[in-house]
Amino acid sequence: MTTPVQLTKPIQFIPMKQVNIVDPFWSPYIQLVRDVVVPYQWEAINDRVEGAEPSHAVQNFKIAAGLAEGEFYGFVFQDTDVAKWIEAVAYLLTKESNSELEAIADEMITIIEKAQQSTGYLNTYFIIKEPQLRWKNLTEAHELYTAGHMIEAGVAYYQATGKRQLLDIVCKMADDIGNVFGDGEGQIQGYDGHQEIELALVKLYHITGENKYLQLSKYFIDKRGTNNFFVEEAEKRGWSSIWHKDRIQIDPQYFQSHKPVREQDVATGHAVRVVYMLAGMIDIAKETNDVSLIEASRTLWNNIVHKQMYITGGIGSMVQGEAFSVDYDIPNDTAYSETCASIGLIFAAQRMLQLETKSEYADVMERALYNTVISGMSLDGKHFFYVNPLEVSPEQCNGNNKNYNHVKPVRQEWFGCACCPPNLARLLASLGDYMYSVTGSTVYSHLFIGGTTELNVEGASVTLNQVSDLPWSGVVKYELSTSAPVHMTLAIRLPNWSNKSTIQVNGVTVEIAEITEDGYAKISREWVTGDIVELGFDMSIKRMKSHPKVKANAGKVALQRGPIVYCIEEADNGKLLQQVKLPSDAKLTLKFNESLADGVYTIEAEGVSIDANCWTDQLYSADTVLPETPISLTFIPYYTWANRGEGEMMVWVNELVK
Amino acid sequence: MTTPVQLTKPIQFIPMKQVNIVDPFWSPYIQLVRDVVVPYQWEAINDRVEGAEPSHAVQNFKIAAGLAEGEFYGFVFQDTDVAKWIEAVAYLLTKESNSELEAIADEMITIIEKAQQSTGYLNTYFIIKEPQLRWKNLTEAHELYTAGHMIEAGVAYYQATGKRQLLDIVCKMADDIGNVFGDGEGQIQGYDGHQEIELALVKLYHITGENKYLQLSKYFIDKRGTNNFFVEEAEKRGWSSIWHKDRIQIDPQYFQSHKPVREQDVATGHAVRVVYMLAGMIDIAKETNDVSLIEASRTLWNNIVHKQMYITGGIGSMVQGEAFSVDYDIPNDTAYSETCASIGLIFAAQRMLQLETKSEYADVMERALYNTVISGMSLDGKHFFYVNPLEVSPEQCNGNNKNYNHVKPVRQEWFGCACCPPNLARLLASLGDYMYSVTGSTVYSHLFIGGTTELNVEGASVTLNQVSDLPWSGVVKYELSTSAPVHMTLAIRLPNWSNKSTIQVNGVTVEIAEITEDGYAKISREWVTGDIVELGFDMSIKRMKSHPKVKANAGKVALQRGPIVYCIEEADNGKLLQQVKLPSDAKLTLKFNESLADGVYTIEAEGVSIDANCWTDQLYSADTVLPETPISLTFIPYYTWANRGEGEMMVWVNELVK
Repeated sequence: MTTPVQLTKPIQFIPMKQVNIVDPFWSPYIQLVRDVVVPYQWEAINDRVEGAEPSHAVQNFKIAAGLAEGEFYGFVFQDTDVAKWIEAVAYLLTKESNSELEAIADEMITIIEKAQQSTGYLNTYFIIKEPQLRWKNLTEAHELYTAGHMIEAGVAYYQATGKRQLLDIVCKMADDIGNVFGDGEGQIQGYDGHQEIELALVKLYHITGENKYLQLSKYFIDKRGTNNFFVEEAEKRGWSSIWHKDRIQIDPQYFQSHKPVREQDVATGHAVRVVYMLAGMIDIAKETNDVSLIEASRTLWNNIVHKQMYITGGIGSMVQGEAFSVDYDIPNDTAYSETCASIGLIFAAQRMLQLETKSEYADVMERALYNTVISGMSLDGKHFFYVNPLEVSPEQCNGNNKNYNHVKPVRQEWFGCACCPPNLARLLASLGDYMYSVTGSTVYSHLFIGGTTELNVEGASVTLNQVSDLPWSGVVKYELSTSAPVHMTLAIRLPNWSNKSTIQVNGVTVEIAEITEDGYAKISREWVTGDIVELGFDMSIKRMKSHPKVKANAGKVALQRGPIVYCIEEADNGKLLQQVKLPSDAKLTLKFNESLADGVYTIEAEGVSIDANCWTDQLYSADTVLPETPISLTFIPYYTWANRGEGEMMVWVNELVK
Repeated sequence: MTTPVQLTKPIQFIPMKQVNIVDPFWSPYIQLVRDVVVPYQWEAINDRVEGAEPSHAVQNFKIAAGLAEGEFYGFVFQDTDVAKWIEAVAYLLTKESNSELEAIADEMITIIEKAQQSTGYLNTYFIIKEPQLRWKNLTEAHELYTAGHMIEAGVAYYQATGKRQLLDIVCKMADDIGNVFGDGEGQIQGYDGHQEIELALVKLYHITGENKYLQLSKYFIDKRGTNNFFVEEAEKRGWSSIWHKDRIQIDPQYFQSHKPVREQDVATGHAVRVVYMLAGMIDIAKETNDVSLIEASRTLWNNIVHKQMYITGGIGSMVQGEAFSVDYDIPNDTAYSETCASIGLIFAAQRMLQLETKSEYADVMERALYNTVISGMSLDGKHFFYVNPLEVSPEQCNGNNKNYNHVKPVRQEWFGCACCPPNLARLLASLGDYMYSVTGSTVYSHLFIGGTTELNVEGASVTLNQVSDLPWSGVVKYELSTSAPVHMTLAIRLPNWSNKSTIQVNGVTVEIAEITEDGYAKISREWVTGDIVELGFDMSIKRMKSHPKVKANAGKVALQRGPIVYCIEEADNGKLLQQVKLPSDAKLTLKFNESLADGVYTIEAEGVSIDANCWTDQLYSADTVLPETPISLTFIPYYTWANRGEGEMMVWVNELVK
């Protein structure tokens, strides 16, 4: 029995506006988003990228606005590519003015305004293509999901620029939605097939202070799974479907509509939907101090991270439905592990940290960030993984192979269904939002990313300058300057990968055990300018094992150092990685490789493999002996895989127990 | 470079009419087909089985015949359930008269006759439901496939009873098809989306002596993949589809129409289609002595059995498309391995043996028969596996799990898509067709199944009585009686699982090596009544290994004894089978278990597992040590799995190399 959270002291994350990231590892990613990803995505959604799949996303708005002729093209949720692009732009503008980029965004927003209907309705698919089906196929049409992304864009753009144009548009749209949905006479007692608007409406509530948006979000959360809405609307519609022949197929678990959200104790169905829903649940739980929803959020979170998450922070192990499977079923080679799902997991983690500051949430956030998320983008900012497997054999992925053809052995260009690239862009561009939180006079440091943070603690201005050597060394330093001496608690996360951490304040070692609570070392003192806190984390290489119920990893080991999960690749280790064994007593040696990515530490070890040449062409044999031969193994950081052409890759390696 | 086969001496299988099976292992299966399966299936296709999915197969014929009112119901190929049932009945009647069963079949045939159109056309879906689409969607509609099964039924029923009614029906139907298809003016230059008619037409050619049927079969084989037929007919039809929304989806590899059959060197797409096609290819290759087709058949066969076949003789590793994957991709837990596909592989093997008598073909036939095929049916004859995995965890299969929900942990009742049960019935009822072949004065014994066989060799009547102790002991005996001394070669297959075989003729040991050719020990002598040949096969337990490229089986071992592949089950060995290891030096002990199936030999061994209780609730850990603990392991024959309720099962077990 866990105690209900007492939300007497609200926990607030320090907004990115107050956080300036200057970090040798992360700054290049943010610059890449600014200099390449966002400009490239603007070209992509305007259909100006040679060889990429057409998007038509901007054109759809122009047609809906009466500024162009033509038909709707693209997915039913094509509008969200524009919304997520504007949101990413907003985050860039928050940190650095860019009048050219802002002008482009303003122009786009004016087109959006013209596309909006007088009622407030805004969705180009249903404006152009099927107006008669508006609000009639929530199951499939992503209509509220699309609205949610536009709301997030409107909030972010207002926060960045102070311009109300898009905020007013989305308020009008949200008001329309509030009229359409609800338990009142003539209203739709329903919710969307793809959760997203729930968390967006809470953002809108925060920025406008309008309680109605919070209540609308709460309505969608509370209503979900309590009725048979998707079947009811299908009956009214005559069972028509956007995707299927003859009649719509409704799998309630896919949509998380099989039970009320408070009764969902196992993550099931489409993974992105689950974590977006969870983020919305936590938002509502926090804002309304709803104990049952807090418990439900914890339960769902725990199921995901303790039973269904890859070691890389990936979630959703099945290609079919891009979905969660069952507990402990996380196959490595057929993994889906969508980049967007790990981004959604980070959204949920950051919100769990607003319910209760426990380091386990930040551990997951960091795991997803340093592994699946940055694996999702190449260092040119133009190639992306949607699917992030933990084991790849190009022979399996290529060819006519339905088990694996979602798995790409190299990063791809912009997709027609372009969810992940703009999601990556908006997360990386707003990374400052995930680093620090404050409750009362306690400042929590969750992520070890360098830069300065401006705080206001008990009337004093505090500047916290973090210098981090992560992920390659465990040395982190905070320098403080304050307008006046200030009594403050600096709570530093002790990451779960560090067995032995040290902290020195102004050169004096702190007894960590005495001040640690929920995974944070809490240094309470009167701080003055010039105070220095130095951290030393254990960066020894860890031989990770999986829970015994994980079939895919039985008898296998994965290497992790700091937050970085490692893998072996064909480029270093040859083919037939499934035959490689890492002895349990193998010496693991670090080696700097300056030519991989921007320079990384690899891990070298002596392993064994078999001499496959001794095998005949028989598929099965009782007589063939395959002698084991020594092999020099090189492990590289998972996020740098597939940068040296197509080849085999493997995170979980067979262990030879010595 | 292999030498082209010289078909100067035709190889003929001895028809089941001349083979009377009396065998402690196989006779119960055949009796089960007679006493339970065929009567039960008659009830099922008449919709009289409580709780089973409706079939409507007989009713469709009644409606088409004008004997009942109503709509077509079922799959587009629903007619084949009736056809396969009649074919199985025919095989039963071949061995034993049964006037009641014959009367039911005759009555059904009369209904079929009434359903046939004046042109000869016969397919209830297109007679009742979509007459305007007749011959317009070969890609999806199984129209020739359905015709093929009816032809096989007509041939078998004529052979069994001498009654021409159904044979005349199918001749008229085949003549109609011959008019519709071909390269002439106004004819369709096409072929079916599901191969089957090719092999059926060769049977019709054999029974009628009408060369036109052989030529029509050859036309379908030769034409396949040489044009863009499926796309062309889709264009003409406006891209309509039976299965898909908006427009038909055509994956040529799925249909084996991506290349001419002579260029298909890798088995790809739907597995049953591939092996049915291969059977037809071999038929035509043999009948026309077509060297290029012989080579193509060998190539395709070798790809299947040397790169894509499970150790159980299962093929088609992917649920999506019930299809072949790529070479060496044969996962154990997501396996499809359809019962029908292994039956088709047996059809192909028997035909390869008619091209060239090499024991490797019979080895595969035996492997499929003793493992996947009989695993497909419960010993009550009423429950079936369509999918035959090599590894099962009920937690994975149950619940909302798209990776595994094709895998059933226990045998199921009659399905709506009821392909496998009647296919099993017709194979088992005609098992005598697969045992012996003759070329010149050489009699080949391919399978070790007891019973008597009547032969005519060089004018003399020969009776061969086989007594077999397989699969539990390697003792087999042949007793001969002849009307006169006869010079004959008895060629006995030396199975690939026997490292050391012995043969004695009338008590005198034969030097096998000197007389062995292509895997058959050829005993040439003048035989007289009372001659006895005794075989002794090596029945030691084999520790089977897989080709190093098979990822799923790396580091694993499977046990095989004689033709029987073994597995471990939760009922004997507890849960978490993935953590079990079989030491490479473990002593393997046979033990008779009279309570499992009809009594089987199990294999006992000392293995190790882990003590999973030491693990915490974390998904990953660097610190937890799981001590290995000894465990007594029991391996049971694969075909007897899932007879003791739901539980884990595993064929390929981790090996602990000592």
